[in-house]
Amino acid sequence: MTEEKSLTHTAGCCRIPPQSGVAFTLRGGQILRINDPFGEQVADLYAFARDDHSCSLSSGRSIDYASKIYLTKGDLLYANNSRPMFRIVDDTVGRHDFLLTPCSQEMFEILYQHHGHHPSCFENLYRAFEPYGIRPDQIGTTFNVFMNVGVTATGEVQVKPPISRAGDFIELCAEMDLICGLTACSAENSNNGSFKPIDYEIR
Amino acid sequence: MTEEKSLTHTAGCCRIPPQSGVAFTLRGGQILRINDPFGEQVADLYAFARDDHSCSLSSGRSIDYASKIYLTKGDLLYANNSRPMFRIVDDTVGRHDFLLTPCSQEMFEILYQHHGHHPSCFENLYRAFEPYGIRPDQIGTTFNVFMNVGVTATGEVQVKPPISRAGDFIELCAEMDLICGLTACSAENSNNGSFKPIDYEIR
Repeated sequence: MTEEKSLTHTAGCCRIPPQSGVAFTLRGGQILRINDPFGEQVADLYAFARDDHSCSLSSGRSIDYASKIYLTKGDLLYANNSRPMFRIVDDTVGRHDFLLTPCSQEMFEILYQHHGHHPSCFENLYRAFEPYGIRPDQIGTTFNVFMNVGVTATGEVQVKPPISRAGDFIELCAEMDLICGLTACSAENSNNGSFKPIDYEIR
Repeated sequence: MTEEKSLTHTAGCCRIPPQSGVAFTLRGGQILRINDPFGEQVADLYAFARDDHSCSLSSGRSIDYASKIYLTKGDLLYANNSRPMFRIVDDTVGRHDFLLTPCSQEMFEILYQHHGHHPSCFENLYRAFEPYGIRPDQIGTTFNVFMNVGVTATGEVQVKPPISRAGDFIELCAEMDLICGLTACSAENSNNGSFKPIDYEIR
């Protein structure tokens, strides 16, 4: 955490190793750029207002106000109190998921009958948020950058390989002071079975 | 609230007046039946574990584990800690929404440029939950019973009139002891411009 926290309020670029996560702060107006250095990798993003952890990212508000499930350049990500948290200012992919919670130990057990510990975005997020005094139960549905989730006409949800290629990125402008958690996803099914790093940059 | 709270742990049937909401407790094993007495009305449902308010209904977990956005008979509604909260044991409609947050003052302002106070499910829910010590920010994406939300192939979200007719219902079995909030929806767009009551019964 120490290395990540030292990024606070400074420009910088970091690599999140495969199947891990970080947390860091953003000042309102700063840009968070999330890069997929090798392609087909997913990064789960969640955020809280820096000075009020009861204010947190809301998938339901964001989808409602955008009237669409796939958010991209020009769209806002809202908090549960309907205040904008992020504005997407650039996006070379255009396909990100905002329906599903981060992969978790329970998800691997329920959906894939996994036995034993499995690294997960949920665990990586709550461990990264812990030094900020944020509890696991406060983490809601994440903005799953580069995750490719289709919804069929009958409502079936299909997790498909990301369409992101090496060098693709999204840029989000913080609309308030934030604490952000970000992962390099741990789920085989989200990244076509390849565990890769994720790069991010704050400026 | 007194009338509603007296329902706790007893069988009973109640009518929720148009554009209002209630809260009540359910014991694990009890059945909550939600009726649409006149048709085309929406009821937003949210729930917390009775003894642990950090355990709350999770749209993202439920959609993930069901691998579909439209939950119906036989499906489970999960909490944020991946424990089942409800099992849908009967459903004469089969079309309910789990993507959108309850309508709120801010929603009417952002989506419909409404001026002045507008009754909303969010306000009705947080006022109903208040006596249980639950804050507005703890209310996440609701299970919007009878709400008919379509998602197009390109991800556009379309709020359409409910397909429920007079007498249609859904029955949910509580999988744990719960505090539930339930509304008769306040949004013109959700119920085809008709504000109607919702009936519910606990047994």
